[in-house]
Amino acid sequence: MGVTFGFLHRSCTYLRPRSFTRLYQIRSTHSSMSSVNKTVHPFDKARLDVLLNRRFFYAPAFEIYGGVAGLYDYGPPGSSLQANIIAEWRKHFIVEEHMLELDTTIMTPAPVFETSGHVARFADWMVKDTKTGDVLRADHLVGGVLEARLAGDKEARGLAAQPPKEDEKKKKKKVKSVVVQLPDEKVKEYEVILAQLDNYSGPELGELCREHDIRNPDTDNDVSEPQQFNLMFASSIGPTGQHPGFLRPETAQGHFLNFSRLLEFNNGRVPFASAQIGRSFRNEISPRAGLLRVREFTMAEIEHFVDPADKRHERFHEVRDVVLSLLDRHVQTGGSTKVTAMTIGDAVDKGIVANETLGYFIARIYQFLTKIGINPARLRFRQHMANEMAHYATDCWDAEIENSTGWTECVGCADRAAYDLSVHSAKTGHPLVVRQALKEPIVTEKEVAELNKKLVGKTFGRDSALLQKIVAEMDEAQLLKLKGEVAQGSAIVSAEGKEFKLTPELITIERKTLKQSIREFTPNVIEPSFGLGRILYTLLEHSFWSREQDVERGVLSLPPVVAPTKVLIVPLSAREEFDPLVKEVSSKLRRAGIFSRVDDSNTSIGKRYARNDELGTPFGVTLDFASVQNRTMTLRERDTTGQLIGSIDEVIAVVTELVQGGLDWAEACRRLPAYDGIQAVD
Amino acid sequence: MGVTFGFLHRSCTYLRPRSFTRLYQIRSTHSSMSSVNKTVHPFDKARLDVLLNRRFFYAPAFEIYGGVAGLYDYGPPGSSLQANIIAEWRKHFIVEEHMLELDTTIMTPAPVFETSGHVARFADWMVKDTKTGDVLRADHLVGGVLEARLAGDKEARGLAAQPPKEDEKKKKKKVKSVVVQLPDEKVKEYEVILAQLDNYSGPELGELCREHDIRNPDTDNDVSEPQQFNLMFASSIGPTGQHPGFLRPETAQGHFLNFSRLLEFNNGRVPFASAQIGRSFRNEISPRAGLLRVREFTMAEIEHFVDPADKRHERFHEVRDVVLSLLDRHVQTGGSTKVTAMTIGDAVDKGIVANETLGYFIARIYQFLTKIGINPARLRFRQHMANEMAHYATDCWDAEIENSTGWTECVGCADRAAYDLSVHSAKTGHPLVVRQALKEPIVTEKEVAELNKKLVGKTFGRDSALLQKIVAEMDEAQLLKLKGEVAQGSAIVSAEGKEFKLTPELITIERKTLKQSIREFTPNVIEPSFGLGRILYTLLEHSFWSREQDVERGVLSLPPVVAPTKVLIVPLSAREEFDPLVKEVSSKLRRAGIFSRVDDSNTSIGKRYARNDELGTPFGVTLDFASVQNRTMTLRERDTTGQLIGSIDEVIAVVTELVQGGLDWAEACRRLPAYDGIQAVD
Repeated sequence: MGVTFGFLHRSCTYLRPRSFTRLYQIRSTHSSMSSVNKTVHPFDKARLDVLLNRRFFYAPAFEIYGGVAGLYDYGPPGSSLQANIIAEWRKHFIVEEHMLELDTTIMTPAPVFETSGHVARFADWMVKDTKTGDVLRADHLVGGVLEARLAGDKEARGLAAQPPKEDEKKKKKKVKSVVVQLPDEKVKEYEVILAQLDNYSGPELGELCREHDIRNPDTDNDVSEPQQFNLMFASSIGPTGQHPGFLRPETAQGHFLNFSRLLEFNNGRVPFASAQIGRSFRNEISPRAGLLRVREFTMAEIEHFVDPADKRHERFHEVRDVVLSLLDRHVQTGGSTKVTAMTIGDAVDKGIVANETLGYFIARIYQFLTKIGINPARLRFRQHMANEMAHYATDCWDAEIENSTGWTECVGCADRAAYDLSVHSAKTGHPLVVRQALKEPIVTEKEVAELNKKLVGKTFGRDSALLQKIVAEMDEAQLLKLKGEVAQGSAIVSAEGKEFKLTPELITIERKTLKQSIREFTPNVIEPSFGLGRILYTLLEHSFWSREQDVERGVLSLPPVVAPTKVLIVPLSAREEFDPLVKEVSSKLRRAGIFSRVDDSNTSIGKRYARNDELGTPFGVTLDFASVQNRTMTLRERDTTGQLIGSIDEVIAVVTELVQGGLDWAEACRRLPAYDGIQAVD
Repeated sequence: MGVTFGFLHRSCTYLRPRSFTRLYQIRSTHSSMSSVNKTVHPFDKARLDVLLNRRFFYAPAFEIYGGVAGLYDYGPPGSSLQANIIAEWRKHFIVEEHMLELDTTIMTPAPVFETSGHVARFADWMVKDTKTGDVLRADHLVGGVLEARLAGDKEARGLAAQPPKEDEKKKKKKVKSVVVQLPDEKVKEYEVILAQLDNYSGPELGELCREHDIRNPDTDNDVSEPQQFNLMFASSIGPTGQHPGFLRPETAQGHFLNFSRLLEFNNGRVPFASAQIGRSFRNEISPRAGLLRVREFTMAEIEHFVDPADKRHERFHEVRDVVLSLLDRHVQTGGSTKVTAMTIGDAVDKGIVANETLGYFIARIYQFLTKIGINPARLRFRQHMANEMAHYATDCWDAEIENSTGWTECVGCADRAAYDLSVHSAKTGHPLVVRQALKEPIVTEKEVAELNKKLVGKTFGRDSALLQKIVAEMDEAQLLKLKGEVAQGSAIVSAEGKEFKLTPELITIERKTLKQSIREFTPNVIEPSFGLGRILYTLLEHSFWSREQDVERGVLSLPPVVAPTKVLIVPLSAREEFDPLVKEVSSKLRRAGIFSRVDDSNTSIGKRYARNDELGTPFGVTLDFASVQNRTMTLRERDTTGQLIGSIDEVIAVVTELVQGGLDWAEACRRLPAYDGIQAVD
């Protein structure tokens, strides 16, 4: 609920989530990613959280010191999952589109963020409890209290209130919904306020608190007027503390400041894109939603620099037919949130999406997210409303992913126009422009005056400079008039109380043809900006389910491309006789570029598989006595639990293709016979 | 010249460089990495710097704002080179050794670094000019002034002084070496001081300044007593600024704090290793040596947790025969810096390297560095001297790489013992230990006393607790004595002025057999810690040379495994007829996993190759009219500039093997005919 006044803060650039939970009903189905039929339990966030914590996908940082809100450490499976998402991102965007990768500095001197506007405006509105001094985010407070009142009203009217979502529960856990029926017009009024919570300024939020008697629900005390709290972490650089600095809240400024070097690297041509993956920091007021709102996070940002006069994209035809769920600004301001399924080609043709380049990236974002396993049915693109959008942006769309807390902005895709390059250029005097040789020079004709400097000097002495100035400032019409008069013999011009008599000897005025062969312009920037932690978390939600027969153990149906481990190698036991085979399979898989792990722990094969289903490992191979005798190996698929059997080398070949995406499980079942499940006895 | 007093600061853990330049003569040969004969110019750092800046390997951050010392941005080739070094590091260490990868938080609450000792001791000694207030690093000051005096002495004696190195030049640029001959014993004294500069504490440096009249060379003013300056960047967390925090100066603490979770992830077993690649920050007093001393940098750290009673390594036999240049502590304290070539097996057997695990990692570090292109002749392992080593470490070796500024520590490899886990455990009360089931329980016999609680309570009332305490604190001998007395009928015990008469009804003392089946211990930590920026920079120095016939253009002979671009695709011109072939070759290479770039700029093929030699691109393929007609393509190697020709698909197959390391150029020359160099005419 980013409701600050600052233009910056609400830009999609910054990945600020909006809790649209109140507007949408959550579908509790699990991910439909995997094509197999699963008998599953409804999605259970508590179970998923337990799994993620127990298997160390991530955990609160500094836990043994009591932890710090909004800071998380990724353990081995979380780190691998993140590394795989990043690797795929690099392939999908940087390699595929020949982007210029950057790795810039986090610690940033204050003047940079003064120019960019962050020092003044990268802020949230907070209120203080007038008695206890407790700090609350103003928009969260207003939203929480009004929603609680609506819930109380619903109950009073005998309507079943929707169970609150996990995130909401936490945010408002002490807002008791007193069962009081509200007048119908109050209900309407509250609903209108909630629907446009993102659009209120700080003073407006203060006004709402007074008008609707909104107090701190924890203490029932009044709250202060909303104040801005800057979200950047401050520090200082150097031994004497004389250089104030901030930790960057986005990687974007690092791209803009290096624009000239990037342009030169690209041989002076636009369009081109730079890309960067790195940490950013935001000192959130009260982060509470797990990975969805954190104080330190990894982003991946692209800045695509483009000619403002030509925002076509040469590869747009490749994505033209991609169908997306779009929620445009007109639908939203009309009070609805109904998405429209439309090809990106149509959306650009109809002017719903501002230009081809923006449309191209929206489609590419969709392709990336669905490729790594985001459920396309729970992915929509929402356009910023007029008031919500940064003032410099011409259009802005957020990729929002539905999860148990509602719809969360995970990628922003904005047309930032020329704002950033212009302000840094103006501040530093360093031109951040493209100079383009015109194929056809622009030819113009105009009157050009030339003074006979020698004679002018002799005639007017020290006043010559004034005469030059007068002539230089004349426009076309004035020059034409003067030309006519001089042609008649002489003309008088005057300024600052001085008069000059001009004759054909003193001045020549002629029509000349001028050629302009260089065009200079500040490029516009299209910025897709990815919050990797949010994508990672929503992906985990979309991937999680439990088998009917084993509710306690979950399964993460992560696609092989991002799964932390691709193949689990399971020897029947840790006995030495399996060692040579384990080593052989492990090293053959490594040579094929497939990341595997061995689980030779002292428990049943079934348990070991179940344990690795929790880690999202898509395939498993078992080495038993038959392997030792006949060099056969079984292959098991995570989602179906189906098993096949073949020679060790055949199975390695099949699993390699499965992991690389050249084969699906149905095809694998045609390549290898099914395994009947009879295990050799130890 | 890390000469601070703090034990922490001088640990190899922190990658602090020592300027051994004054002790060693720099060999000015270029890298011997490539096996081809090159007619080359001597290494020219100024030329390399120009190349790196012009081609945007890296550049000062915030350059258009005037820059900030010690902060750099990596441009496209630098980012790619770094990403490739990291990818190879991941393969070489994490994948190969099944390490547990982590990604932990940079922003760290103060209590963590209070416990680890960083708040008190992660500092450098600085002095202030007593009149201007200018800040100088104390060790740099002493070193610079004494070296200048020695240089002046050499000149006075008519001896050619060594030209100062680049880094040294900068560090001491205003220390004029006045031509004054020193007494022989002064020369000796200065040399001794310089040889052990790393060993002085802050007060000792102050003492040296007074004793040898060392003043600020810029102003000739006296300097203050040395003071400690903490090198961590400070900030605060949360909206009210109540939680002080620091940016981590190393990633290590993130591993230690998560030890319990990692151990559990590893099924409770040691040894295992965690690994992390990430940013760290150090607020250096006056960083001046390019990428060798920066304020923000990417590290790769491994924490290998091992049983203190068993530091063998199961894969040590694989590296036993690796020969290393070792510079042990005894040689150094003996005043010499002569390295010894020795296998790591011998070094461990002779006790020069403390244990197998430490030795294993030293050898693996060597293998990694030489694999990515570091010249093995310019790589040595230097052991920390007794005073230099962190007090908790039992042994510590730095991988030092020679470059134009001298020998620079690029990797530290320390045995940190149990220090970190112990202090965090003591502070938080959270046990950071391994509990190991003993194969053979330890069986002990001892006297065990048991009081008849009911009767004792009845007899002694409120004093019963005191009696229990007395008995519980008795040792074996006391219990035996008591046992004897009670067997005689009764015994008197007393404490705090109270007496208890014990009879056989009140107390039983029996010899019992006790089994201990669990062993609990705090693991030791072996820590290889890599400064990636330093490795990257020294690699660039080792790779750089110029051809005799083209001094202006340099060549970077980067091995294919780390080269930013593997293959350059050069169409004869940007004419459309080449487009289909360019696309075909580009997409076939991409499918083979080879990163290529197209250079279709409007200049000669030779110039385009030369431009890409500067970027270290090892191979180039040219598409010309013959390609269109006959589907042939030429293949060019960067270091030899040799060219081969073959069908497009043959060349793709060969270049793929070349990049993947399955083939060398000599072998490629046997596979494909040489190209005579006659170009089709455009």
